[in-house]
Amino acid sequence: MDRVHGGDIYPFGGDILDFSINTNPLGIRHEIRAAAISAIGDMDKYPDRSQGKLKAAIGKREGVKSEYIICGNGASELICDMVSALKPKKALLLSPSFTEYEVAVDVVETEKEYYLLKEEDNFDVREDILDCIREDTDIFFLCNPNNPTGRIIEKELLMKILERCREKGTFLVIDESFMEFSEKYKECTMIPAVNEYDNLAVLKSFTKMYSFPGLRLGYGFLRDPEVMARLEKVRPPWAVSNIAESAGVAACSLSGHPKNTRSFIKREKNKFYLQLSYFEDKGIRYIGSEADFILFTAPDVANKNLYELLLKRNILIRRCSDFRGLNGSWYRISINDENSNRKLMNALKEIYGE
Amino acid sequence: MDRVHGGDIYPFGGDILDFSINTNPLGIRHEIRAAAISAIGDMDKYPDRSQGKLKAAIGKREGVKSEYIICGNGASELICDMVSALKPKKALLLSPSFTEYEVAVDVVETEKEYYLLKEEDNFDVREDILDCIREDTDIFFLCNPNNPTGRIIEKELLMKILERCREKGTFLVIDESFMEFSEKYKECTMIPAVNEYDNLAVLKSFTKMYSFPGLRLGYGFLRDPEVMARLEKVRPPWAVSNIAESAGVAACSLSGHPKNTRSFIKREKNKFYLQLSYFEDKGIRYIGSEADFILFTAPDVANKNLYELLLKRNILIRRCSDFRGLNGSWYRISINDENSNRKLMNALKEIYGE
Repeated sequence: MDRVHGGDIYPFGGDILDFSINTNPLGIRHEIRAAAISAIGDMDKYPDRSQGKLKAAIGKREGVKSEYIICGNGASELICDMVSALKPKKALLLSPSFTEYEVAVDVVETEKEYYLLKEEDNFDVREDILDCIREDTDIFFLCNPNNPTGRIIEKELLMKILERCREKGTFLVIDESFMEFSEKYKECTMIPAVNEYDNLAVLKSFTKMYSFPGLRLGYGFLRDPEVMARLEKVRPPWAVSNIAESAGVAACSLSGHPKNTRSFIKREKNKFYLQLSYFEDKGIRYIGSEADFILFTAPDVANKNLYELLLKRNILIRRCSDFRGLNGSWYRISINDENSNRKLMNALKEIYGE
Repeated sequence: MDRVHGGDIYPFGGDILDFSINTNPLGIRHEIRAAAISAIGDMDKYPDRSQGKLKAAIGKREGVKSEYIICGNGASELICDMVSALKPKKALLLSPSFTEYEVAVDVVETEKEYYLLKEEDNFDVREDILDCIREDTDIFFLCNPNNPTGRIIEKELLMKILERCREKGTFLVIDESFMEFSEKYKECTMIPAVNEYDNLAVLKSFTKMYSFPGLRLGYGFLRDPEVMARLEKVRPPWAVSNIAESAGVAACSLSGHPKNTRSFIKREKNKFYLQLSYFEDKGIRYIGSEADFILFTAPDVANKNLYELLLKRNILIRRCSDFRGLNGSWYRISINDENSNRKLMNALKEIYGE
């Protein structure tokens, strides 16, 4: 499988309007940049292996005890670590979803079962997911809201899934990297359930909300001390750099930032929805999203696909054909700053007509 | 097994004279710090997954093709990755040696065989190592110069080991993190052999020579395209941060730095040798080292061990009892700046008498 990811602007020399990346369109806050620069002073010291300051800051932000927290070199490292630690024989995965779950379980040759998300259901997870969680399901990777669909699973179904997982001995890993972009984050986050369930881990990322993917910092919550010990054992001793640690601590103190981000994204998403709905008769259809990106399907024009047509206009969007369950007509765009969003909408108008 | 490491100054509030760390006593060069600060400007971009610039710089420095190079979040990550990729059933390890090889193979439940380094041999690897490389030896981790002994294996024996490994189907991983601290690095490095042998990987670290352990950056060389593909598959997609990449590129252009470092370390090591040899009749014995640290054994004084006695004087050294094959009377000290070295020597005089 090809490991395509957004944000790969390097083949284009970096000088391109990037809608393939999923980070916060408000960009990086100056407090975070200042903390990172000041941490450069400590680059000649080993990182604190206990990650004491960082865990205290995250714990305070999320209301979770430090001993339930794990920090890594991006959420992507923690996905690999979960698999290394749990060595699942069989995994349940959504399709389409973030490909790194699949890549991670392939390393330990886990058997994979896919729950197919259907276009006619808006790619929503339905209650029949419960039937897919069986005695032999060792791990279930859930991305909520899901990447690339942007769809969210509501708390009621999430609790049923978690209960069912506990009943069947399944470890549930929920990747909430995009949760705080949703207006529903308070009701849908499963972080509080970590205090009650031993078979649950919730992963999050600083990359998305705080927009510093270049630094690599992800974190997770889980309660089971045995799983935590196994996780610590499978990981390199210093996963998080001093700079990432300082940036993370600074990010945790920016309480207004997620709220401002949600307002901005909501407004800009609505503009895109409106624009895309104008092209419905041209065959464009978008999926309503709870994240900071929108999945949509769009037809080729004169034998050229939309990706190529936009690339000619120096705009990079995310082709989705590498996602299991999506064909070449699906694209994902992130919400960008207002000016950039306008440029993309204008380009779409040029391509599909007014 | 306890994963004790040097440089863990955090329990002491950071304000302690640290001889437990193995990084360059000349400290970090301003060019590297400047490159890191300037890269902070890119923290809101994803790292370049192809690591093109970094691999080109490393390739030029070491005379190896870019496609043979792999970069990771510290050499410690690459050790774990090698094991994940190769899934060895049986490993050969030196004892004592860097504990992370053992931790890494334990994750995949590899059977371990130890080649015991003997004090009476100065902890040198002898030719009888060849008999330990057998048909069922899947991987052999060699640290050269070895941590914590500082002993180096000469080229002639290294080539015999490599040939024997090829004959027996053993993958040889040589960790040369400390190689450039040795005057013998040109004759003893096995990097050139990467161009000839498919069963060899050589790992290195920027952390030691360029003194930026806080950033996390290690690299390795191997030729076999199948092993390289497996390695890429077991790793998170963005292992190296933008900051570490820039620091690494800057480090590669500092050609005079390793040479100056070697001169300094040689001189300061000789001072320590001289000082330690004065206490021979007190039961202190050091092992001559090719690295930037010295292993020695020292008796307790009035039922207090040397670690405790120095800690009282605000000096942190590395206790070695967690290294398989060493008891509580062994210590490792790094070479530090002149002033610090003098302080440690004075403290030793206080403890063991003139």
